[in-house]
Amino acid sequence: MEKLENILNEIKMAAETGRYAPLRGVLETLEAPDIAWVLGRLGEEMAPVFRVLPKETAAEVFVEMEPDEQEFLIGNFTDPELKNIVDKLYNDDAADLVEEMPANVVKRILSQADPQKRSILNQLLQYPKGSAGSVMTTEYMTLKAEMTVEEAFDRIRTKGLDRETVYTCYVTDRNRKLEGVVTVREMLLARREERIGDLMDRNVVSFHTLDDREQVAQAFDQYDFLAFPVVDGENRLVGIVTVDDAMDILREENSEDIEIMAAIVPYEKPYLKTGTFETFRKRIPWLLVLMVSATFTGQIISYFENALAAQAVLISFIPMLMDTGGNSGSQAAVTVVRSLSLQEIRFKDIFRVIWKEARVALLCGVVLAAANFLKILLVDNLIFRSGVSVAVAAVVCVTLCCTVLLAKLVGCSLPMLAKKCGFDPAVMASPFITTVVDALSLILYFVFANAVLT
Amino acid sequence: MEKLENILNEIKMAAETGRYAPLRGVLETLEAPDIAWVLGRLGEEMAPVFRVLPKETAAEVFVEMEPDEQEFLIGNFTDPELKNIVDKLYNDDAADLVEEMPANVVKRILSQADPQKRSILNQLLQYPKGSAGSVMTTEYMTLKAEMTVEEAFDRIRTKGLDRETVYTCYVTDRNRKLEGVVTVREMLLARREERIGDLMDRNVVSFHTLDDREQVAQAFDQYDFLAFPVVDGENRLVGIVTVDDAMDILREENSEDIEIMAAIVPYEKPYLKTGTFETFRKRIPWLLVLMVSATFTGQIISYFENALAAQAVLISFIPMLMDTGGNSGSQAAVTVVRSLSLQEIRFKDIFRVIWKEARVALLCGVVLAAANFLKILLVDNLIFRSGVSVAVAAVVCVTLCCTVLLAKLVGCSLPMLAKKCGFDPAVMASPFITTVVDALSLILYFVFANAVLT
Repeated sequence: MEKLENILNEIKMAAETGRYAPLRGVLETLEAPDIAWVLGRLGEEMAPVFRVLPKETAAEVFVEMEPDEQEFLIGNFTDPELKNIVDKLYNDDAADLVEEMPANVVKRILSQADPQKRSILNQLLQYPKGSAGSVMTTEYMTLKAEMTVEEAFDRIRTKGLDRETVYTCYVTDRNRKLEGVVTVREMLLARREERIGDLMDRNVVSFHTLDDREQVAQAFDQYDFLAFPVVDGENRLVGIVTVDDAMDILREENSEDIEIMAAIVPYEKPYLKTGTFETFRKRIPWLLVLMVSATFTGQIISYFENALAAQAVLISFIPMLMDTGGNSGSQAAVTVVRSLSLQEIRFKDIFRVIWKEARVALLCGVVLAAANFLKILLVDNLIFRSGVSVAVAAVVCVTLCCTVLLAKLVGCSLPMLAKKCGFDPAVMASPFITTVVDALSLILYFVFANAVLT
Repeated sequence: MEKLENILNEIKMAAETGRYAPLRGVLETLEAPDIAWVLGRLGEEMAPVFRVLPKETAAEVFVEMEPDEQEFLIGNFTDPELKNIVDKLYNDDAADLVEEMPANVVKRILSQADPQKRSILNQLLQYPKGSAGSVMTTEYMTLKAEMTVEEAFDRIRTKGLDRETVYTCYVTDRNRKLEGVVTVREMLLARREERIGDLMDRNVVSFHTLDDREQVAQAFDQYDFLAFPVVDGENRLVGIVTVDDAMDILREENSEDIEIMAAIVPYEKPYLKTGTFETFRKRIPWLLVLMVSATFTGQIISYFENALAAQAVLISFIPMLMDTGGNSGSQAAVTVVRSLSLQEIRFKDIFRVIWKEARVALLCGVVLAAANFLKILLVDNLIFRSGVSVAVAAVVCVTLCCTVLLAKLVGCSLPMLAKKCGFDPAVMASPFITTVVDALSLILYFVFANAVLT
């Protein structure tokens, strides 16, 4: 990081003098993502500095930049410059770019792409968002079963693909149907004259273009492969998903889960790049919904106003009951949401999950209630002289125990039911469950209080 | 998944007849993680079915199994069987195994390892938990700068390493110091007689053994490499971290963050594999802490009992104020925790973050307060005839706006301060912040109420 800051200062100084050419040497010592980081901090000087990059590097760096920076650069490019970049982009990166740019910029990009690329792009853009087809790379290495290892290596040399895509080769028949998979490692360890058909693994784990991208990404975690093939309805190879795509997908899906669980409408931009108004728009909907639903909890309190007036001490336990219920519920909900997304549990496990949560809840509930009972009698009454009667303490503690049980059961089952119904289980996590549990626990509280204390 | 269920049934039936040998053919069509999945569902039959696996596959499958299954298998192994597995394990996998097994099993494992492996294991086990050293692989491919590409390929063929470790080769000098890095792809595209010294990249991104493993894992996401070298204090190459390790680390760290934010002591076992009592132990500490701290909020209510008795309607707004404050705070906290862990923001950005959150909070606060004001006047008063005075409505709405501002500021700054002080920022997220914000907002509420209504 410090090294990058130094280089950034060096470049800023050079830019002031207007002599950009010597910067090439400095930039060449950096990896593409680091160059993108430096460029992103140059402001207006970004365009002239970008121009000193060698052509190959320029495309690699361009991919790593943020959408707003890409838009700025494209605005500064001449048509031949834009064509150079577009030609060098991988098709999946080009498709991502097109998806993120405004319409007028998209028009310019497509007009500079050659007809073949344009048709691939149009096809890629048709896959639904979140599908394997929408994240796959269309550049991959195909071999034929009758080739020898020597011939295969010659073919790899001629095509000269990128690092993520070169190490796993796919064997297809005349109709582009997937027959097997062979890795460069296996070919390196084999004799030169061995036939690919004898080397290849015929048990290929493959995905369909419409499969969920998260499912593909999870498979990387499970199988330790570098790429998975994506096939169409007729088992024809149409693309591959590589491990670096999988990492991006997992990061995005994780951020999304976390944001949804914190009642935020998910968004992909980095925090400091998101405008104030945009951040506001992502946060206000759930705050409004939850605020309105929390007023129902208030209405429950109003309804029992008479009970409260008679026993004012009951009020002071409300925050503790609500908070503990909310925390117990979100513990269960968050655990279940995470296990669902890691595919550790499925809907058919729902009764095992409920049974497990019930036992955990009883343990937690009894311990919390006992701790609370002792605290009321020993700390509140003896030290602070609050004068809470044993009957009130008992009502509070029984409610606490029931609330924890209720919270855990609601917390574990709502996300699973949501998933079964095709909703995102994360939506059912913390804040929503807190609201439900708040209302239920207050009703219990007042019912118990009415029964015991009047 | 369905295919696996079918194979599982087939194996269960074969196991009943006691004829295990024919299963070999069935199992050979599966990948190691899938075989591990099937074995894990066999119970007592696990050991005899495991024995039919070819030696190479057996070690791969063994690594994929859960610790309790591994322990069961080791208990069933003869000494030569155990030695076979231990010999075939990669050193980092063996170190993981040793860390997870109980002492008597560890003793047996180490007694079966050859002296060299034992000494490497002992060294690996000394790196602190969570460091790059503790997750690195000690099997990697080293080349010398004076070798030709042809010679390098010969060396790769002789050593024949695993898929994750073979594609990135490290060039070291006589003292094992790291000089450069070269990929198999670059060697494939080069002429056979070219020298490695001319091909290699001298700008190597490397990590130190004591670096945080999460930092290494994040680097994969950033640079799209397949492996990073790990060096000791003298820049000597001692291991590599591969992309599949990085995925494991990111999954674990994400789960940990999510669990901590939900007030759970993090644990690594899958949900259904964790015992009831164990789950209870992971959840009860924070529930107890938060319950006790929530009683302070209750004490604030008791303190203002007189104000409440005079204006009973004030009570019914408490849940709404507490919930909205909690939700606003956790939105900010969770966003900041996530951005910190993705390295999008650092401590020096704290004033930019606070300034941004302040503006977002004002927008959210004003909208929520306005919505609430209208709701009280139009819904509560006109429809439900609650008879809330405008003064009370004003107090509620001003408190609401201040609460949101306070919640967002506390929510964004506490995690950043925690990180600066060397704590895990996630600990400061949701439940903790909720408790702080609850107390602050109630104090504000009653102070305003006292000032305006009396």
